[in-house]
Amino acid sequence: MEKIDVAVLGATGTVGQKFILLLQNHPYFEVRELVASERSAGKSYAEACNWKQDIPIPKNAGQLRVKGIEEDLKSRILFSGLDSSVAGTAETRYAEDGHLVISNSSNHRMDPQVPLVIPEINSEHFQLIYSQQHRGAIVTNPNCSTIFLTMAIAPLHREFGVEAVNVTTLQAISGAGHPGVPSLDILGNVIPYIGGEEEKMETEPLKILGALSGDVIEPVPIKISAQCNRVPVYDGHTETLSIKLTSNPSLAEVRRVLDGFSGLPQELGLPSAPEKPILVLDDPDRPQPARDSWLEKGMATIIGRLRPCPVLGIKMVILGHNTVRGAAGAAILNAETMVRQGYLKNGDRLPKGQRRTRTPSLSESDRASG
Amino acid sequence: MEKIDVAVLGATGTVGQKFILLLQNHPYFEVRELVASERSAGKSYAEACNWKQDIPIPKNAGQLRVKGIEEDLKSRILFSGLDSSVAGTAETRYAEDGHLVISNSSNHRMDPQVPLVIPEINSEHFQLIYSQQHRGAIVTNPNCSTIFLTMAIAPLHREFGVEAVNVTTLQAISGAGHPGVPSLDILGNVIPYIGGEEEKMETEPLKILGALSGDVIEPVPIKISAQCNRVPVYDGHTETLSIKLTSNPSLAEVRRVLDGFSGLPQELGLPSAPEKPILVLDDPDRPQPARDSWLEKGMATIIGRLRPCPVLGIKMVILGHNTVRGAAGAAILNAETMVRQGYLKNGDRLPKGQRRTRTPSLSESDRASG
Amino acid sequence: MEKIDVAVLGATGTVGQKFILLLQNHPYFEVRELVASERSAGKSYAEACNWKQDIPIPKNAGQLRVKGIEEDLKSRILFSGLDSSVAGTAETRYAEDGHLVISNSSNHRMDPQVPLVIPEINSEHFQLIYSQQHRGAIVTNPNCSTIFLTMAIAPLHREFGVEAVNVTTLQAISGAGHPGVPSLDILGNVIPYIGGEEEKMETEPLKILGALSGDVIEPVPIKISAQCNRVPVYDGHTETLSIKLTSNPSLAEVRRVLDGFSGLPQELGLPSAPEKPILVLDDPDRPQPARDSWLEKGMATIIGRLRPCPVLGIKMVILGHNTVRGAAGAAILNAETMVRQGYLKNGDRLPKGQRRTRTPSLSESDRASG
Amino acid sequence: MEKIDVAVLGATGTVGQKFILLLQNHPYFEVRELVASERSAGKSYAEACNWKQDIPIPKNAGQLRVKGIEEDLKSRILFSGLDSSVAGTAETRYAEDGHLVISNSSNHRMDPQVPLVIPEINSEHFQLIYSQQHRGAIVTNPNCSTIFLTMAIAPLHREFGVEAVNVTTLQAISGAGHPGVPSLDILGNVIPYIGGEEEKMETEPLKILGALSGDVIEPVPIKISAQCNRVPVYDGHTETLSIKLTSNPSLAEVRRVLDGFSGLPQELGLPSAPEKPILVLDDPDRPQPARDSWLEKGMATIIGRLRPCPVLGIKMVILGHNTVRGAAGAAILNAETMVRQGYLKNGDRLPKGQRRTRTPSLSESDRASG
Repeated sequence: MEKIDVAVLGATGTVGQKFILLLQNHPYFEVRELVASERSAGKSYAEACNWKQDIPIPKNAGQLRVKGIEEDLKSRILFSGLDSSVAGTAETRYAEDGHLVISNSSNHRMDPQVPLVIPEINSEHFQLIYSQQHRGAIVTNPNCSTIFLTMAIAPLHREFGVEAVNVTTLQAISGAGHPGVPSLDILGNVIPYIGGEEEKMETEPLKILGALSGDVIEPVPIKISAQCNRVPVYDGHTETLSIKLTSNPSLAEVRRVLDGFSGLPQELGLPSAPEKPILVLDDPDRPQPARDSWLEKGMATIIGRLRPCPVLGIKMVILGHNTVRGAAGAAILNAETMVRQGYLKNGDRLPKGQRRTRTPSLSESDRASG
Repeated sequence: MEKIDVAVLGATGTVGQKFILLLQNHPYFEVRELVASERSAGKSYAEACNWKQDIPIPKNAGQLRVKGIEEDLKSRILFSGLDSSVAGTAETRYAEDGHLVISNSSNHRMDPQVPLVIPEINSEHFQLIYSQQHRGAIVTNPNCSTIFLTMAIAPLHREFGVEAVNVTTLQAISGAGHPGVPSLDILGNVIPYIGGEEEKMETEPLKILGALSGDVIEPVPIKISAQCNRVPVYDGHTETLSIKLTSNPSLAEVRRVLDGFSGLPQELGLPSAPEKPILVLDDPDRPQPARDSWLEKGMATIIGRLRPCPVLGIKMVILGHNTVRGAAGAAILNAETMVRQGYLKNGDRLPKGQRRTRTPSLSESDRASG
Repeated sequence: MEKIDVAVLGATGTVGQKFILLLQNHPYFEVRELVASERSAGKSYAEACNWKQDIPIPKNAGQLRVKGIEEDLKSRILFSGLDSSVAGTAETRYAEDGHLVISNSSNHRMDPQVPLVIPEINSEHFQLIYSQQHRGAIVTNPNCSTIFLTMAIAPLHREFGVEAVNVTTLQAISGAGHPGVPSLDILGNVIPYIGGEEEKMETEPLKILGALSGDVIEPVPIKISAQCNRVPVYDGHTETLSIKLTSNPSLAEVRRVLDGFSGLPQELGLPSAPEKPILVLDDPDRPQPARDSWLEKGMATIIGRLRPCPVLGIKMVILGHNTVRGAAGAAILNAETMVRQGYLKNGDRLPKGQRRTRTPSLSESDRASG
Repeated sequence: MEKIDVAVLGATGTVGQKFILLLQNHPYFEVRELVASERSAGKSYAEACNWKQDIPIPKNAGQLRVKGIEEDLKSRILFSGLDSSVAGTAETRYAEDGHLVISNSSNHRMDPQVPLVIPEINSEHFQLIYSQQHRGAIVTNPNCSTIFLTMAIAPLHREFGVEAVNVTTLQAISGAGHPGVPSLDILGNVIPYIGGEEEKMETEPLKILGALSGDVIEPVPIKISAQCNRVPVYDGHTETLSIKLTSNPSLAEVRRVLDGFSGLPQELGLPSAPEKPILVLDDPDRPQPARDSWLEKGMATIIGRLRPCPVLGIKMVILGHNTVRGAAGAAILNAETMVRQGYLKNGDRLPKGQRRTRTPSLSESDRASG
């Protein structure tokens, strides 16, 4: 398969860096363009970026010239780690210009025409892109805390019905980017507040688990209550969940359903797919962010401490790698799914964009490439 | 008022040290005896103790000779910070010998004849000591996480009725004592498990909020579900609460009831009583353990982020200093209350102990001093 | 004694907040004016300030209206915690206008006419202000790491002669202010670099220990080599020192000289003076920043692990509270010393400022008040 | 090449676990036996071990039955991570029984007949084993802080002559094993003391850099002064060095010599050898333990901040992974070197052990396998 040219938007940021890391030697995608703020534009990526990853900057990425956000791009797929202060209009403009924007930003997640997808759960929502009035399209993945919550409740909802969820998060500092949380505020401390996070956790899962009917998503009527905390952990969001189910399965049944969960990415054997999207641990004191976040290359949802909840029915602790499955990795898995589902190939699945003026649309570049 | 001689049991441990710290220059109590393990017995306290507090060892305490757990004691009140591995039988024996044991240990908390008291809430439960078959008596205070939870729900239960509570804790390492949690296990990590803690949080409040009828406590039928986590914080337990009330007050009413709460220790102006047992903060990102634990000298329950809960009705974040109000300070406030309520003075309120053989009982030493 | 009106420059910053904290109820000084950036100007201090101290904002300070850096001030003494990006010209202008600027900023420390003073060591250097061409004057205290180093070597230099010092620092994050060091950079990490810090440590002590001859300071010819590191500690700078002395005293003599050190602030009994400016600890594993920084109310230099150095002769570990004795406390002690030495009273000790146009000079307000 | 059977002594400890991790799929060695305390003996390794590594227990190791320290072993090479409380006599006994003990323990390092080897520097010292009065032999690697110090000064000593070194360490908590340092002691703190560490750093390098003459090592006359600190870092020891050289090279020459350093393991292309044993970084704020410890798979010594030292001549910051190159990895590299140098094959290089009674000696099993 010929590789697809991709760009990374917000390339110098924390999520942008993770995109570049995870896209290194990717079998489907080739990073050709990097976009960052005007301050970085014109420099080589190696110069522009305060690289914070554990391994050195991939050579070819380091040599790319960083483009400004106003410059035209040639890549078909744009992975967006743009800051929410600019992502809204920029992503819309890129989509209008014919690009497929795979975004990790929150701005468009709840737009009615924008798919908000976890491919193990609702890959059929990608079809929403046909209702977008762009030549290209915008596709999003959930918030870093939402994704693990939704992964945990999706199989339970399908099997037993979920009525309500109480969730408290203990979130890693890497979720706030760099410079992010000042060390004076978090060393030996807990900050019981993350702006906008609780709202996202209480609404995004309802759309993801919702049914697509025509070009409208009917959200599920699950009541979710979230309390979000920042803790002095580097990577890995921990969440405590109490869940009220419609039916009354045994803990063993719950465990079996969680542990046995699998979805389209596993079926397709996608490059970034975890072998098991949900890992259930039985040790009494796991999962732990500093120990277990990297299981399944950071792409799994780890569940432990499954037990009865006197108030809501069942409770458990869940964990996930917030900058991998919780951000860049989720977006990349969305893109991989769309590629394999033919969204970039098959004529009748193309966006219905009309204004074809500047850059190749998804379908045009499709034709061009084959 | 003549000072009452007191001993500290488990004096070299974390809680024991805090007892000695908080009893320094106490207007009611004079530390006369210190008890620790056989390894320490015979040494001066300064020698025996690996002192970990911020200020130097109080001089007179440092010079006391540490006694072994088998030695007879002369003090009327014994503050116990004994480890639960020995507290059970040792405290019983001390009580049989006529001492008033004010214990922070968990062993006897749920014994039907043992008062489990937060004096702002249920000081009348102290009367349970008359049902104990000792010459002396055992009195306990709740677990370090339970106390703040119970303080937060007590005024709400009284005013509106509490039906259910979901609580997740983020607990400081000092709660595990020294050496306690290995740094390799908790630096940059979360441990989602603290042995026995959840059971304590789910049961102790029911007894504290229960009604004394004769010499039996009728526990309240509140459903509590706890999830306990250790986080890399030095002092201060943070807890997220979701609460289901019987009636449906406005948030403003809830806030008013919490903020206006006051109890017997405040009325009596006890030396260790916080001016306000509950402080309600309105900043969006408070309370924080590294900032707010020492408010009211570590004796208050700090509440913030009061807001609606889509699942249970209201939610909030609470915080307290786990080794002050959560341990030694709670025990001392219990003792102060008992002194001022005349438990150590008034003949007809004395324990009904019969076996008067070795050391002065509460009543005898009472007569001696009065 | 009538209190002297003072202002705090850079009042919303980390050092500024510490000034306000330490000046609360000060017997000599009354905080009347607060200066901060234009963004804060016009607001009440409580509104403008992201207060980070352990106790609430002092009431009177909280109510003061914050002034911009361009506004005229009435206070005689200005405590400056201004950022070095603006301190240079601003402090000069304030001094020209007749104020006594007691600065913690680095900008003017090495100016030949500006005293750089630790009052236990070189209070006679205050006389340098008479060589300044201002109606007022600028006085400075050393860098937060320099001050403890200089305190440790000053008595040794006086008694035995110091030829060379090798010092490695382990500095707390509070030294970098707020937001300061991003948590992603320092949690579980060491940053072996602090911009400009090593240069300050290698030069400032030479001036402080130098002899005033006329209006020129002859720096001492001690060779100092510094290596500065940031570590994940909240407050308290630790430093390892290896020292080459001219003579060859025993360790016991060295210990005696350090432990017996005392200076003018102790002699005068100044309000902020530590009883002992140097504390020598004999425990093998002390001093420790999280345990010992607050000894002597954060105003002492704590020394431990005194032992022979195979390379340079003697070695030791020192510690000090970087935002108290290392910053605001040092400046306040300078001011207290000057007040008690009559610099603000005695006509013949006044600055020789000529341009008397706008605000009262040190001498004028002197006359006014006396 | 047929794999050599090896055992891990102290297999459940921190270093033991790292041995098992690093020996997984090793081309020369096959882990066949695991030895731990009596408490673990008889259990499977998976049961006995509180596994703390980032990846799951290697399957075959997990299934091995743990042996007690008194049981006979069959493996030719024993990798020892035994605690120093037992390593002394146990290792001697194993060597007497004919095993080659590759030890990370400190007990025998300074024995005159025991090689203390960094194979890039002094692999010829392995010949010392022929002077041991055992059928087998003991070989050691240096202390975790010593090894990086010695790696940094070895090329400089060879090229320019080293006269004196002043070193301050900032050591990670993993160096103290598990449970090791209590979190209450190190969270947000520095402990300026590590028992015995400074003595090791001041003596071990002199032996390593010494010349073998006959069967005696002549230590080099370098003066070393060490100050050792524990800091809240997970993995990676940072050290600040000031070095006095005999000659006076430019910094560029020093950099060239360090960066160009290579040794026998590189020449032989040993499986655990870093491509470059010394990496010189030029960024002003590197190396950092949380960023750079894993460079070269944790087997390199990372050097940064090379600059002049006003006191001793040159200074720098060095870093290494304390549990990889500083412990298990160093021992494994020693074993690999010995294998490739024929110590286990070539008859005339065999230990001169006489008492051949119980288990096959190095030579016997050699014959058996070849």
